[in-house]
Amino acid sequence: MMASDIHHRTQDFIKLYPVVLRDLKEVYGTQASDVLITVSSGTGALEAATSNFFSKGDKVVVCCAGKFGERWVELASAYGLNAVVLKAEYGDAVSPGRVETALKENPDARGVMFQASETSTGAAHDVKAIAEITREAGALCIVDAITGLGTMPLDIDGWGLDIVVGGSQKAFMIPPGLAFISVSPKAWEMNQTANLPRLYFDLKREKKMAAKGESSWTPNTSLILALAEALKYIKEIGMDKLVENAQLLARATRLAALELGLELFAPNSPSASVTAIRAPKGMDSGEIVKGFRNQFGSVIANGQGTMKGQIFRIAHLGYFDFADLFAMVAELELILHTKGLPVKFGRGVAAVQNVYAESALAKETVPA
Amino acid sequence: MMASDIHHRTQDFIKLYPVVLRDLKEVYGTQASDVLITVSSGTGALEAATSNFFSKGDKVVVCCAGKFGERWVELASAYGLNAVVLKAEYGDAVSPGRVETALKENPDARGVMFQASETSTGAAHDVKAIAEITREAGALCIVDAITGLGTMPLDIDGWGLDIVVGGSQKAFMIPPGLAFISVSPKAWEMNQTANLPRLYFDLKREKKMAAKGESSWTPNTSLILALAEALKYIKEIGMDKLVENAQLLARATRLAALELGLELFAPNSPSASVTAIRAPKGMDSGEIVKGFRNQFGSVIANGQGTMKGQIFRIAHLGYFDFADLFAMVAELELILHTKGLPVKFGRGVAAVQNVYAESALAKETVPA
Repeated sequence: MMASDIHHRTQDFIKLYPVVLRDLKEVYGTQASDVLITVSSGTGALEAATSNFFSKGDKVVVCCAGKFGERWVELASAYGLNAVVLKAEYGDAVSPGRVETALKENPDARGVMFQASETSTGAAHDVKAIAEITREAGALCIVDAITGLGTMPLDIDGWGLDIVVGGSQKAFMIPPGLAFISVSPKAWEMNQTANLPRLYFDLKREKKMAAKGESSWTPNTSLILALAEALKYIKEIGMDKLVENAQLLARATRLAALELGLELFAPNSPSASVTAIRAPKGMDSGEIVKGFRNQFGSVIANGQGTMKGQIFRIAHLGYFDFADLFAMVAELELILHTKGLPVKFGRGVAAVQNVYAESALAKETVPA
Repeated sequence: MMASDIHHRTQDFIKLYPVVLRDLKEVYGTQASDVLITVSSGTGALEAATSNFFSKGDKVVVCCAGKFGERWVELASAYGLNAVVLKAEYGDAVSPGRVETALKENPDARGVMFQASETSTGAAHDVKAIAEITREAGALCIVDAITGLGTMPLDIDGWGLDIVVGGSQKAFMIPPGLAFISVSPKAWEMNQTANLPRLYFDLKREKKMAAKGESSWTPNTSLILALAEALKYIKEIGMDKLVENAQLLARATRLAALELGLELFAPNSPSASVTAIRAPKGMDSGEIVKGFRNQFGSVIANGQGTMKGQIFRIAHLGYFDFADLFAMVAELELILHTKGLPVKFGRGVAAVQNVYAESALAKETVPA
């Protein structure tokens, strides 16, 4: 981010942008799909996923397992799509079986929209199974992977993920302001007849501009420069290693929570991007969030909406590593102790250490 | 450091520099002394402390408890001073009693030079006691506090510390390139007759320039800007809090080391700027340093000179906090475990957590 800014219509930018798009595609791990950048938050790219492939009145199946699932519902409603909403209780995921039933009952459904990881509850969907069912039904598989990319395996070509949305500030570890969207050949086909209104998020236009090494709209060039660096770093580490890291951290966090007598909010389909933990009985989770911030300057998230006060959430994406987690769990132990809970110092940390010690990481070295 | 650079002879700089000098003096905690900046590493300011107050052949007492003590010996020798060297074994400090005896045996000694904290061994000198003895003998009390400032109490006016040297990259938490030196009225008096050669490090000249809001030589203006910010931050936290933080971290580190069955290198006069720990029998401390770096990207120091391979050193100055230490100790436990030592995960971390829980920090909040 410290490099000098460059103007987005200059030769410098035109040289850099195709490299960024190529690296982004490599990191996404797809040959068949195009990967485009939108100058927006992740929600902008979710809107692009909604407005570029359907026509008014088209039926879509929407899996809704939390606040971000509700965003799909809002988008479908705003664009006049006929949404069949499969709701899961907060903390649960929508099972592939329910998607299969919905698609059998609605053979005219043209798309299935869901979150890879529902960040508001810490629950993950079975992306591979839902994608398979969706493909067999001939519908478009649309995945919000804003927190899923880099924290869970996502085989775009192998599993048939037609649209995969990512955001700059999550696994890509740069400030918010850019979002990413992969588009499969099947999605481009549907794009030809899709009549929903779109301009800023017109992906066909974006693809044409990208082919010329440009973007449709003025991008935050300093973010593009930062993205270029972030992509280099991710390629060096390897996307699979990034995913493995998040999975290990998530598992270690779950084991530490259980060791401390805490209850997981999404025990059956836990996400690797974030772990949601229930506050102990009679305690507001906001107190725990405040404890982290005020005592240690550490940032964890409270629950959103009705989950506020009930749960707290620890993220595992991007730069988070075991050193962070050792400290976070030690801090959590101290906070619970301060609140009068019977905590044996170091017990949760030991659970994390055990996961580390048993992992391949314990035998490896980090890049210099 | 990200602010635009400003030229050092411009009005902007002339406005900023006196503020920096005033804040530096406030953070040093002295009314009576001047505090000046040298554009050099800390060693440059140690040289200034040697060359500005003595004449050729003057006798000085030098306490030498490690690599940095040896630097005082070299400087005294280079400038033709007659040094009475009081050597301590590595890991020990020179006792005030030995200084007292030396000054009685050498009533013509004009100065006493020592390290507040000998970073190479993790041993600290009893600054207050040595200063008192030195003052009574009428000699100049010269303290290398490059790692001592911000990690131990140093009452410049109350204890009679005539010269106190600090460096930018330690407690001041900015990159290396600037050093600091306080000069008492008694030192200025001796400066009038001191005939050792000096120009770049001429403190009288520096004082004159500082009075005009300038520095004698071209300073790295971006470092001055960074220093301005660092001083604001330290003033906000409070120097006493910074010292208290380092003292707590050092104590917690010592207790954790003992809990893990390790031996401290300087058990009798431990420094709060760095804790030196002996490697377990038959193990090269370099392996531990490598383990931190390669497994976790954490930086600790090996021993220097003959202590290389024997000890490893964990720093406590500046930005280091309990979150860092929770992680460092968890990492140390894992490294020792990997090396086949019988380690109970979380046991050292618990020692750190106990120090935290019993401290005032556990009841306080960090500034937003």
